Amino acid sequence: MFWPGTVRVGADDASVDVLDQRLLPYGEAWLTLRTLADVRAAIAGMAVRGAGLIGNVAAYGMWLAALEAVNDSSGREDAAAFPASMRRAAESLKAARPTAGNLAWAVERQLAVLETAGSMRDALLSLRRAADDLARSEAGACRGIGRHGRPLIEALARPGAPVNILTHCNAGKLAFVDWGSALAPVYAAHEAGIALHVWVDETRPRNQGARLTAWELAANGVPHSLIVDSAGGHLMRRGLVDMVIVGADRVTRRGDVANKIGTYLKALAARDNNIPFYVALPASTFDLALLSGDDIPIEERDGEEVRRISGKTDDGKIVEALICPEATPARNWAFDVTPAALVTALVCEYGVCRADEAAIAAMLDGRPVERGPESCEFP
Amino acid sequence: MFWPGTVRVGADDASVDVLDQRLLPYGEAWLTLRTLADVRAAIAGMAVRGAGLIGNVAAYGMWLAALEAVNDSSGREDAAAFPASMRRAAESLKAARPTAGNLAWAVERQLAVLETAGSMRDALLSLRRAADDLARSEAGACRGIGRHGRPLIEALARPGAPVNILTHCNAGKLAFVDWGSALAPVYAAHEAGIALHVWVDETRPRNQGARLTAWELAANGVPHSLIVDSAGGHLMRRGLVDMVIVGADRVTRRGDVANKIGTYLKALAARDNNIPFYVALPASTFDLALLSGDDIPIEERDGEEVRRISGKTDDGKIVEALICPEATPARNWAFDVTPAALVTALVCEYGVCRADEAAIAAMLDGRPVERGPESCEFP
Repeated sequence: MFWPGTVRVGADDASVDVLDQRLLPYGEAWLTLRTLADVRAAIAGMAVRGAGLIGNVAAYGMWLAALEAVNDSSGREDAAAFPASMRRAAESLKAARPTAGNLAWAVERQLAVLETAGSMRDALLSLRRAADDLARSEAGACRGIGRHGRPLIEALARPGAPVNILTHCNAGKLAFVDWGSALAPVYAAHEAGIALHVWVDETRPRNQGARLTAWELAANGVPHSLIVDSAGGHLMRRGLVDMVIVGADRVTRRGDVANKIGTYLKALAARDNNIPFYVALPASTFDLALLSGDDIPIEERDGEEVRRISGKTDDGKIVEALICPEATPARNWAFDVTPAALVTALVCEYGVCRADEAAIAAMLDGRPVERGPESCEFP
Repeated sequence: MFWPGTVRVGADDASVDVLDQRLLPYGEAWLTLRTLADVRAAIAGMAVRGAGLIGNVAAYGMWLAALEAVNDSSGREDAAAFPASMRRAAESLKAARPTAGNLAWAVERQLAVLETAGSMRDALLSLRRAADDLARSEAGACRGIGRHGRPLIEALARPGAPVNILTHCNAGKLAFVDWGSALAPVYAAHEAGIALHVWVDETRPRNQGARLTAWELAANGVPHSLIVDSAGGHLMRRGLVDMVIVGADRVTRRGDVANKIGTYLKALAARDNNIPFYVALPASTFDLALLSGDDIPIEERDGEEVRRISGKTDDGKIVEALICPEATPARNWAFDVTPAALVTALVCEYGVCRADEAAIAAMLDGRPVERGPESCEFP
């Protein structure tokens, strides 16, 4: 299976290379991140995006912030200031995408790593090792999501027709270190020989569906069709969708789901048409401190993302074009909240569970939200 | 109030000029239609679009088809073939946009005009007069929609805050000869000094919201913000939408509504958040021959409309750009059906009524679906 990866530590052992997702599918280029500021800009500017990947790159960002501090350090005073400077780094990273649960979680996890470290150099090694571990364990968690989600697809298979799966945004390999959340069951079912067809929501304004999901499904040989975000309701009414599966940016302890803007509308249509609506996520996306989705901060981004769109012209140029009158004001909330009542089930590396407080607590009970790399086998 | 109009008979009295809506908002150019083929191409290619306008231009198309027949005519044989050739013209026009109720209605109305005409020349004059009458009466109907819809907005007005109205696609002046359906109440309320703000769905794939609704609201001084089609659900959950109002392409006798793809999703979100969802239409958009929305043919258009998007680059060029990988397949249904149960009320030139068979029948009872030009006063 073709896979270029999304993140890797640079050969100099002092930088992180990330696949620049703003250029896909027209070009494949890697960005080298050397500083906290680089990492923050890559996350805020969405060169790096996707629930899991943001968290992982932020974990490396904490390492790079420590590396900057160590390189600038000239003695005891700097060492004393180090914890405070790392807390500032953490806040800066978390603010880059305020809705992203994994971002906050990964950054907090690195702050916890710091607390047990002795010297600044010790901290540096620990942060690097923790970020590497996270990359491995998140890939393992995604494989687990695939293992638990595959039977949900298998159960819908009928002879002579593919299982039609609708997904929104990109919650695939590109959104994680590997496999993805929503697409992990799709890849697992495809590899098991189940006939599938994926309806890919283009996912305005940044078209992660059209640019990224279509690209990675094609690279992995999964049949799919691109549709506008408005089409899902019609498809469901016409019996052309067997299940919906999406990822999540943050899920509360009662199962309310923050995900890419538009997810809620698909969940409403799925309920109206008795179609199962699944949300796939690694346990790290749960925010157990929050009960209600209304308490999840919803990021509002620059309206220019709505007013302008980029693409490739017939002569091969990548262009950005205005799609409305020059003076039109635009608003751009990046996420919405789907109430737990609209979610058929949550799929994570520990299994499939109802989206309610008791079921989630029972599933996570005694299980590490920080998973070991070997916690899940796949397929 | 600034208004360039959408359709007018050419100075040569043998052609129809239409505003080319594919170029808006970046350029204002008019297309001259001289033949049935010209009219069909303008409608199918969406140079001319919008429920009422399509019907009106098609009515002129029937006149131009008759004009071609008269000009080509060399005697009795041609006169004998004339009715059949006009029926072929009618079928060709109706097939250009199969979902459009007003298109079928206007074309059938012209066929009925033909039945009472004596000679071909007589028919020509009658078709022309009927098309002119239709333009006047549709503008009158839209004014009536404004008159009846304005109080619905007025009832939501609160001191110190605008009434937030969400609309999808373009059902304004550009979609009709004047005033529009969904936007007629908005214009009427705005002229009456009610503070308003309109959330404009961009309306992928052809962006009639971003290009046309934003343009005409700005031209008429109505405050508005552009949003992606996925945003409405989030706005409703956050209390930022007081009402939804959309137009319609065809409405059955029990009140099921075919309208631009995505309308159904907004109706679901409105119900889930107890927000009134209104559908505005002239009586000519009712298709009383159909009971269920499932029987409305839903047009599927070329997937290239999804894969490519046009806009203006910073150096002022109008470009078309691919927004997905080269090989990505796309599907493109142009409309969906919103079941009557999700519609708070229908607003037409005769009043406001519940979306059910009895209420619609009572409202239309004894009223001409073909209206006279003076049937409605506005504001």
